[in-house]
Amino acid sequence: KKTFRIAVLPGDGIGPEIMEEAVKVLSLVAEREGVTFEFKHGRIGGIAIDTDGTPLPEETLRIAKEADAVMLGAVGGPKWDQNPGHLRPEAGLLGIRKALGLFANIRPATMHPSLVEASSLKPEVVSGVDLIVVRELTGGIYFGEKKRYDGPNGEVAEDQCIYHEAEIERIVRVAFDIARKRQKRLVSVDKANVLESSRLWRKVTERVAADYPDVELSHMLVDACAMQLVRAPKQFDVIVTENMFGDILSDQAAMLTGSIGMLASASLAEGSFGLYEPVHGSAPDIAGQGIANPLATILSAAMMLRHSFGMDAAADAVERAVWSVLEAGHRTGDIAADRSRAIGTAEMGRLVREAL
Amino acid sequence: KKTFRIAVLPGDGIGPEIMEEAVKVLSLVAEREGVTFEFKHGRIGGIAIDTDGTPLPEETLRIAKEADAVMLGAVGGPKWDQNPGHLRPEAGLLGIRKALGLFANIRPATMHPSLVEASSLKPEVVSGVDLIVVRELTGGIYFGEKKRYDGPNGEVAEDQCIYHEAEIERIVRVAFDIARKRQKRLVSVDKANVLESSRLWRKVTERVAADYPDVELSHMLVDACAMQLVRAPKQFDVIVTENMFGDILSDQAAMLTGSIGMLASASLAEGSFGLYEPVHGSAPDIAGQGIANPLATILSAAMMLRHSFGMDAAADAVERAVWSVLEAGHRTGDIAADRSRAIGTAEMGRLVREAL
Ligand SMILES: CC(C)[C@H](C(=O)O)[C@@H](O)C(=O)O
Ligand SMILES: CC(C)[C@H](C(=O)O)[C@@H](O)C(=O)O
Repeated sequence: KKTFRIAVLPGDGIGPEIMEEAVKVLSLVAEREGVTFEFKHGRIGGIAIDTDGTPLPEETLRIAKEADAVMLGAVGGPKWDQNPGHLRPEAGLLGIRKALGLFANIRPATMHPSLVEASSLKPEVVSGVDLIVVRELTGGIYFGEKKRYDGPNGEVAEDQCIYHEAEIERIVRVAFDIARKRQKRLVSVDKANVLESSRLWRKVTERVAADYPDVELSHMLVDACAMQLVRAPKQFDVIVTENMFGDILSDQAAMLTGSIGMLASASLAEGSFGLYEPVHGSAPDIAGQGIANPLATILSAAMMLRHSFGMDAAADAVERAVWSVLEAGHRTGDIAADRSRAIGTAEMGRLVREAL
Repeated sequence: KKTFRIAVLPGDGIGPEIMEEAVKVLSLVAEREGVTFEFKHGRIGGIAIDTDGTPLPEETLRIAKEADAVMLGAVGGPKWDQNPGHLRPEAGLLGIRKALGLFANIRPATMHPSLVEASSLKPEVVSGVDLIVVRELTGGIYFGEKKRYDGPNGEVAEDQCIYHEAEIERIVRVAFDIARKRQKRLVSVDKANVLESSRLWRKVTERVAADYPDVELSHMLVDACAMQLVRAPKQFDVIVTENMFGDILSDQAAMLTGSIGMLASASLAEGSFGLYEPVHGSAPDIAGQGIANPLATILSAAMMLRHSFGMDAAADAVERAVWSVLEAGHRTGDIAADRSRAIGTAEMGRLVREAL
């Protein structure tokens, strides 16, 4: 019997509630598929700050490293917002990305037909949107040197944005590989008319493109991309971009669908290892009420099945189960047209398992 | 008789066509208001590269410096896209911003009632949108040191993002001053959970806020802002942010209205000096056809009248003239529901002058 080790890091806010449903779905998958999932829980984010005095305890990192994949809930909350940088929940997230070499963040933004009304965009603009943002996740201005010092006109702050050719090449290859399995259209987003790192980005992307003659590559400036995502999001198949631009554009793209509670993400290392988490945050305002939408976490689990465990059929089955529950009209509060008829976290999880 | 000197830099693509209409409107204003406008033309961008071998000739800079304000059309085109950085049209734009100390870019995104249909967003989401993005324009990663060198894993590229306290303070004050004259709500956008420059930004903004107790200040992360602009743009009154984030968010905000051919911008120095230009680009694909929309440039001229010349009544009159032409149903191709009935650049300019 095949065994996969899964590190489960629920984190803060609604993290534990939504993770519970995903774990239950995974347990059912294991049963049906005749495999074993070994779940090991770890602390990350605010809860880890409270318990261990650091957002990313050594033990958590060890559990993650010994696992075949990591499931993450969400981190953060007002309680830790005033903490110094290294004692903030986000530091745990940035830390685990770097420590595990999770350089490729994959963020699909897909408009499910039965949720078109949830979008703030017109149905004709948004229905049929099916794009993926591939974001570089361990380089750029996020991880460059930071400085703070006194200058002649008061304090000065610096952030260094740095990219190495090899870093660009590996993320661009991931994006080309994904595009090759889809509509074969890749848009590389940069700010080559201003930034040196973008000019290198563009050069490397052009070079790598020679290995993918079947994929149509184009370049778009980041400001133009922010416009085009609003104007005509259907034009995009796969977008690849650096860390900071990817942070902004992937969130913008997610919100186009109007149902961010539905969106999954994967952060991949070389090989099959990956960390899977919902795109939405820890939603401290509704934590503990049992009303959060667990579907993004469940869909993240499906991404894990497919990418880290090679269980494509099981992943498809989970995704189909989610869509069928939606098609039957069930909604959590965040995506419900009529909130009074919304169902809770546990009920949604149960329905998905039933459909499975 | 009062005299104002205006440097006119039409630039590339549709620049000359739209500028011609703005100049004609200004000439009419001068006549009616009993002032003199002295127009001096200069070259910038691609045309300057072709003629002078540089996107920002000394002579242009002199004309601009001797003027009371600058009107700019647009720069750029495919002809110069493969040029090295310093020989690209954008370098002229960046150069003039820096040389003239134009640190405050003011970008209103207003949804005119008769154009709601042009937006890709639902009418109920977008009608009534009336926000201003205040973007820092001469600092940050745009103007920090750039490096390119060979490392152990191939080439390396670096961009330095640097902000001085004084730079942050002056732009934030501009934003507070603007908010004070509007709905008194200012959202400062940064990435303080990751960037040192953002942490300084937030600290300085908090300090300056003490001088504006009547303005409600809040902070928003740049990724959250990109989402909120899509989800509920009406929540914003004034947004202030650093150069790179402002580039992205102001373009995103502009596109929300669906009528980027209508949007004006001002780039201000200390005092009353400013450069005024439409938000849209040089649109090389339609250049020379006489179909470009001159309204953004005419509205930029109105911003100039108000801010640089203190001619508030004349500015109001120009804006009213533009709205009345729109209300009468006249449209250029870019904003026309029925393109076959669209009017041209010159006709639109004539109608505005007639309404004036
Ligand atoms: C929490 C924050 C540091 C993080 C990021 O900016 O990468 C988040 O916004 C994300 O996109 O996962
Ligand atoms: C042309 C380019 C350098 C410029 C910028 O990024 O500032 C443009 O996008 C703008 O917003 O005015």
